[in-house]
Parts: sequence; structure tokens; C-alpha cells
Amino acid sequence: MAKPTLPQGTRDFSPETVRKRNYILATIKNVFELYGFQPLETPALENLETLMGKYGEEGDKLIFRVLNNGLNDPKNLDKSRSAFENILEGKNDVNLTSRALRYDLTIPFARYVAMNHSQLNYPFKRYQVQPVWRADRPQKGRYREFYQCDADVVGSKSLMNEVDLAMIYDEVFRKLRIDRYELRINSRKLLASLAEKCGGSEKLTDITIAIDKLDKIGLEKVKNELREKSITDADINIIEKYLSISGDSIQKIDQVKTILGNSPDAQEGIHELEFILNNTKNKNLNLAVDFTLARGLNYYTGIIFEAKAPSDIQIGSIGGGGRYDDLTGLFGVSNIAGVGISFGVDRIYDVMEEMNLFPEEVMVTTRVMFLNSGEKESEEAYEIMQALRKRNISCEMYYENSKVDKQFKYAENKNIPFVVTLNATEKTARVKDIRSGKLEILPLDVKSFLSFNF
Amino acid sequence: MAKPTLPQGTRDFSPETVRKRNYILATIKNVFELYGFQPLETPALENLETLMGKYGEEGDKLIFRVLNNGLNDPKNLDKSRSAFENILEGKNDVNLTSRALRYDLTIPFARYVAMNHSQLNYPFKRYQVQPVWRADRPQKGRYREFYQCDADVVGSKSLMNEVDLAMIYDEVFRKLRIDRYELRINSRKLLASLAEKCGGSEKLTDITIAIDKLDKIGLEKVKNELREKSITDADINIIEKYLSISGDSIQKIDQVKTILGNSPDAQEGIHELEFILNNTKNKNLNLAVDFTLARGLNYYTGIIFEAKAPSDIQIGSIGGGGRYDDLTGLFGVSNIAGVGISFGVDRIYDVMEEMNLFPEEVMVTTRVMFLNSGEKESEEAYEIMQALRKRNISCEMYYENSKVDKQFKYAENKNIPFVVTLNATEKTARVKDIRSGKLEILPLDVKSFLSFNF
Repeated sequence: MAKPTLPQGTRDFSPETVRKRNYILATIKNVFELYGFQPLETPALENLETLMGKYGEEGDKLIFRVLNNGLNDPKNLDKSRSAFENILEGKNDVNLTSRALRYDLTIPFARYVAMNHSQLNYPFKRYQVQPVWRADRPQKGRYREFYQCDADVVGSKSLMNEVDLAMIYDEVFRKLRIDRYELRINSRKLLASLAEKCGGSEKLTDITIAIDKLDKIGLEKVKNELREKSITDADINIIEKYLSISGDSIQKIDQVKTILGNSPDAQEGIHELEFILNNTKNKNLNLAVDFTLARGLNYYTGIIFEAKAPSDIQIGSIGGGGRYDDLTGLFGVSNIAGVGISFGVDRIYDVMEEMNLFPEEVMVTTRVMFLNSGEKESEEAYEIMQALRKRNISCEMYYENSKVDKQFKYAENKNIPFVVTLNATEKTARVKDIRSGKLEILPLDVKSFLSFNF
Repeated sequence: MAKPTLPQGTRDFSPETVRKRNYILATIKNVFELYGFQPLETPALENLETLMGKYGEEGDKLIFRVLNNGLNDPKNLDKSRSAFENILEGKNDVNLTSRALRYDLTIPFARYVAMNHSQLNYPFKRYQVQPVWRADRPQKGRYREFYQCDADVVGSKSLMNEVDLAMIYDEVFRKLRIDRYELRINSRKLLASLAEKCGGSEKLTDITIAIDKLDKIGLEKVKNELREKSITDADINIIEKYLSISGDSIQKIDQVKTILGNSPDAQEGIHELEFILNNTKNKNLNLAVDFTLARGLNYYTGIIFEAKAPSDIQIGSIGGGGRYDDLTGLFGVSNIAGVGISFGVDRIYDVMEEMNLFPEEVMVTTRVMFLNSGEKESEEAYEIMQALRKRNISCEMYYENSKVDKQFKYAENKNIPFVVTLNATEKTARVKDIRSGKLEILPLDVKSFLSFNF
């Protein structure tokens, strides 16, 4: 058979990569738990109708659908054929694909909350770290199967939740030593107020989508896009003034007041931002108000977040989130407000690789390797290994009858720091620290090994 | 919209369930690592041709196939239609479904080894804990999406690997307090020898499949099945004698010698079993030779394992595995022998629930909750919470303005052991231990909280 391959846009994670990724994920999960968030897991397979219509027309097209089984059952043939004709017309048909792969973690979470609404303990704080699938065109840094890592609180309107989430970003990035992260905030209510002023609230989505592209396409193209959406030149002028607000967070808020005035939306949005600023001051966060922040997703209604990599690393966004009023309304359960954030694990991984931030300990696999030096020695070695494992020190023995060079090579390739050679005749053990080259001779007994500093 | 549902055979895992499952998985992963195994992850999506033909005709039918995108692209319509006709004839067609969901972790591992053959560090010891998908009819304890948890060594023929794997079973089950687990071993070489004697080696698969059903269908039905496969009554008699061997492991081996005599296969098989017994004696494993153990999978060639729940718990197999000579041969890379085991996580979960083995600490979520008792207090509380979190003590504050009863109810539902009420006027804090009902009064400052034993 031909050499096997992987589907485009998917990856194997080698042991070294898994260890590094787990280091990131364990750090994030630990911080989530320190703030009272609890883990939730939902299945990869969701009913097609749970996902469809939730991600916009473009999103729907990127959902991986799973073929039903039993399509070729004689009694199903006609139904199968007519379902397939629907697919060929660009429609969906549950007679052909009743299930699909999770596209994000937010909609499955909303589905979970709606299904378990009456049993949940509110405020319900969950985190979720699972893969999602998107039939996007693969390119550098964009995969068809990738992990999302979300935390959400539902059932609480308090802005202190937003403060917690800002603190979580800070704590995670500092623990990962990405100290120069940037956390930007804005309020969707200010964008709503801007839309009211510039063409009416029905323009909110158009304006948000255009502003969201500012980083990528630049101001002139944003203005073109607004023009195409029939926003008047006068209104585009106001939007441009809004987008060019500068200074520190307090100065920016002063300026936005002069542009948006006293509309209730603007006042609430400013109150939200000031609340976050007041409750995070003296806490040393790299937090700043950024009015150009818009976020692509429609369901946000209050504070929105974006976390960015240090600006000298060309990686951009490494997290985002915001407050929503009624996500579970999609599933028939209304009035459950919530707020959530997400970490971009793949990008954080790239930042850490580029800045060389993974601690050396993450690279260590097994701690101690015993060379294979004969049957008599093996028995003694096994006893010692069992004693070390009881102390949670990982060890292994090279069981193949290979030359000593090859055995050392194995240890080096695997980043094993200590290699032990036993000599049953002399009743000694030579312990070599591969990193320093240092050699020590121990008496060949369990006690000596247990008191050695591996 | 109608109340949402989950696809048949899939599950949401609530925070409590995730914590319990993670307790099992963390225990297993830790033991794997203590023996030098390293984590590997492969994508959920594999090319259809990687999976097809690897699991037998029945298995192939249970593979979830993923619909290609772009089927309705005008230039693809004809190809799509003819591909669909193939599906309706029960065939596969990569023009309709070029990808499928992982069915187990073994074939993706073999695919990974074949693809990365020249870069791997042999013996390559990997573990893998990921979900798999099967379009099986859902029933109690059988799901369409479930986790597998495997460890394999490839590139080593040493039977010491089998010894390690037996030790791993023991260590995991003892750490989980499933002390009365039973680990059974056999060698496929004895089954090969039995087949040679009873109809020839081409009968090996038939005999193995029939014996594998012994537990489920009983001896008489196994004999019927053998008869249907044209095994003579005389040969069935020999097989029955083989299956009725009893006694302790040493006695059993003596008896099997009289039945299978001196064929090379039988001698090697006996050597394998004796090697494992010799190298695990005095180690207190619940290990026994069981000649009725056959294992359904075709690729096993040496020692096979099965781990069972304590016999008074009606759950049966909680793990299995064995040695294979040439798994990567399926992908064009030959001569990489290996041996692996698997833990049945869902069943282990059920055993632990039934025997009430989850430690109480697994049930604790957040450790300390601060009641919402006013703005002044909140500020002080936040400072204290940040200090506790630095010590890795999880805390949260109830931010909603709810009655105190409701706040306590929240803490109880979430299994939070300590609830704190602050009084900024009196400069005191009341710490209530929910489990014991005990109340303590602390001075309202960070230092007092840091020295309290949460």
C-alpha cells in the first residue's frame, strides 16, 4: 500500500508537542479552576440542526457533516437519493447527514445549558477544552481540526465576572511568561450607539463587521466597505473620528463622550468600561480600552475582549470573548445572560516557541534510564525502578540487546537526564547526568537510589 | 425552536463526571509515564483509505464517514452523483467521503509509526487517550463516541515489555483501589498450535472467534459454531479439553503441555507465559493464565491480556491487549513488532461508581466561596482571594445580589467546603466549614487567611 497521509489541515502531535501543549492547557485549566470554573465536555457529534444557522451563511458552509449509516438499506434508497439531490442543491437534509462535527464550543455550551437549564447551579461557571472542526481552506496557522479553550459564566449580570475574566487572562499569560501580552476591551454598547448615530441600529452588524477588519485591511478599505453598505460620507466621517481616538484609556473615554454624547447606550458602555478599569487598577494588568475592537460575532452585547501577543511577535490575537445577553435563546431558553473568553492555544504555542518560553522541565520525558547490562543486573534494576516509581520518579530500562552507544543515544534522543549502569559483581551503580556529564557511583541497593537526588 | 437533543449514543459530561473521569485518566497517564511512555495525539479525521479494510467487514460498516465539501460545485455534480450511486451499492467512494472518524487508536498509531518510521526513537513507547467513534447500535454501556486509552511499545521484541504492561495494569488498578481486579494472560501461539492440531492453521481465525465468545454464549454454542466451521467432532473434543483446563497457572501449563505436546508454537507460547509468570512472581499481581482467553482481533501473535472487574461486579472486561508482529505492515513498513494494552475507561468508571471508590477530594470544586455582602467587603475579599489563588487555593465570590440562603445553597450544590462572610465594620471574617458545620472568626486581613487551613 502507498505511504499513508493525513487529511489536509490535520496534524499529528508528537510526544514533545503534546507535552508542550499540555503545559499550556494545564496552566489555563488551573487558572480557570482557581476562579471557580468547572470542566464540561460535550460530544464531537452534534445534531445537524443544533449547529446549522448559528454561524452565518459562511460558517454553515464550513461545518463538516457526517454521512448517515444505512443509506443503502433497500427501504431507504428513494429517500437517500432525494436527500442527496437536496445536498447537490446546496441544502441540508437530515436523511443524508443528521449529524455534524462541533464547529466551536459556544453553541454546544448553549445547547447544554438549554437542555439542562433547570438542574444547573447558577451562576454556572464552566470551562471547556476540546477540538473543533472547520472545513476552512488550510493555511499557515489555520487548521481543519484545532482545539478551543473557553470559559463562560451564565446566569450572572455582574460586571465583576468581566473583571475575573480579565484577571484570568493576566494570570495565565504571566504564568506562561508572556508578560508583554496586551488585553484590549471595548463595549458593544458603544458600537450600538455609534450605529444609531450613523445610519440607525440596523447598520450595527455592517459597521461591526467593517471595523473588525481594520487591522487586516486598513482604514481606507474599511471606509470603502462602509460606503458600499450605503453609509453616508458624513457618517463615515464620524466613524473615522471614532476609530482615530487615541491616548490612554481615560483620555480615550473622554474623547468618545464628545463623539457619542449622552445616548443611553453610550452611557452604559462607558459605565461598563469604567467599571472594569476601576476594578483592575493597581493590579498591574496590561489592559487598555480600544475603540477599534469590534469582534466578528453577532451575539455580543456588552464588554468585549481581545488578547494580543506582544506586538513585536507577528502573531496577533491570542484570545477573545465578551458578554452576550441571550445565547440560549437560540434553543428556546431565554434570559440567561453570560460572558466568556477563549484562549487561542495554537497561537499561544507559536508565541511560546518563538519567544523560547517553554521551561526546560517540559522537555524531560523519563527521568532515569537503566542500561541493559545482563540478566542478573536486570532483576536488581527492576526492583530499584519499582521503588523509584513509588516516589513518582519515572524510569525505564532498555530491554533490547543493543550496544551501549545505541542505548545512550536512545536516552539522549528521549531527553532522559539520568542513565544508570549496574554492575552486579562489584555491587555498584554508575549514575550519569547526561546534561552535566557528571558521573556518580552508588552502592547497588534500593536505599542508595532513594536517597539520590534524581 | 424545539428543545435540542444529543445524537443517539453520545453524552455530555457534566463537571462532576469530568472530574471523576479525569481522576481515572490522570491516574492511568501518570502510571504510563512512570514506565517511560510518552503521549501521542492523532487527528479525529483520518483519510478513509487509512481506516477501511482494517477492522473486518463488520467493523468497516461501523466507521463514520464525513461528507466532502464542494459536492454541489457545478463542475463536480456528475462525479458527486456517480460517487453517491457507489455508496448506495454499499461501496465507498472518496469523491463523496474522503475522510472518516477514527474508529480506534491502534490503526492511527500504526499509520503514525509508518509515516514517521525513520525519525522515531526505538523502542518507541507511546500512550494515547482520545475519543473514537463507532456507528454501533447504542445500548447500556455502549456508546457511539467514547474514549480509548492505550499504551504501546513498538520496535522491541523483549518479553520484559509484557512484564511492564502487566505491572502497569496492577499499579493503575491498585491506585484506583480496584484491588480485586483480575488479569488473565494467554499466548496466541498456543491457539495457533491448537488450530494446527484441529483442522490446520487456516482454522485459527474461526477457532479464535468462537473461543472469544465462550463467556457470552457458553460452551455448547461455541461447539456448535465450531461445527458450522467444519471442525470435526474429534477436533472439537480436543478444543473442549483445552478449554476445560483448570487449576492454578502452573497446573494449567502442565495440562496444556499434554494436550498440545511439543509443537514449536506450543513450546514458544509456553515459554512466553512462563517468562511472564517468573518475572512477576513475588510482585503480588492478580495474574493468572487463562487458556479460554482468545481476543477478537486478528493481529495478535504472542501474549494476550485481559483485565476484568472484580467478579462480584457484573461488568466484565475493563482492559485488554497483546503482542503483534507486524501492525505497520498494513502501511508498507514491515518488521516493527509491538505490544500494547488498553484501559476501558467507561467501564472502569462504572466499577468505581458501583464500588464507591472515588475519593471525596474529587468531588470538591472551588475550595472557598466569599458571600456577597456589600461593596466595601468585596474589595477586601478580592484582595484576599488573589492571595489565596497565589497559594493555589481556588476561590470565588458570589457576585449576584441574592439572599444569603440562596448563596449558601449555591455553595452546597457546588460542593464548596468553606464559605466566608466578611464584616468590614467589625474587621472580621466568619469562615464556615460546610462539611463539619464548624465556624471560625478571623481578623479581616490577608495574613490571617493565608495562615488558615483551607
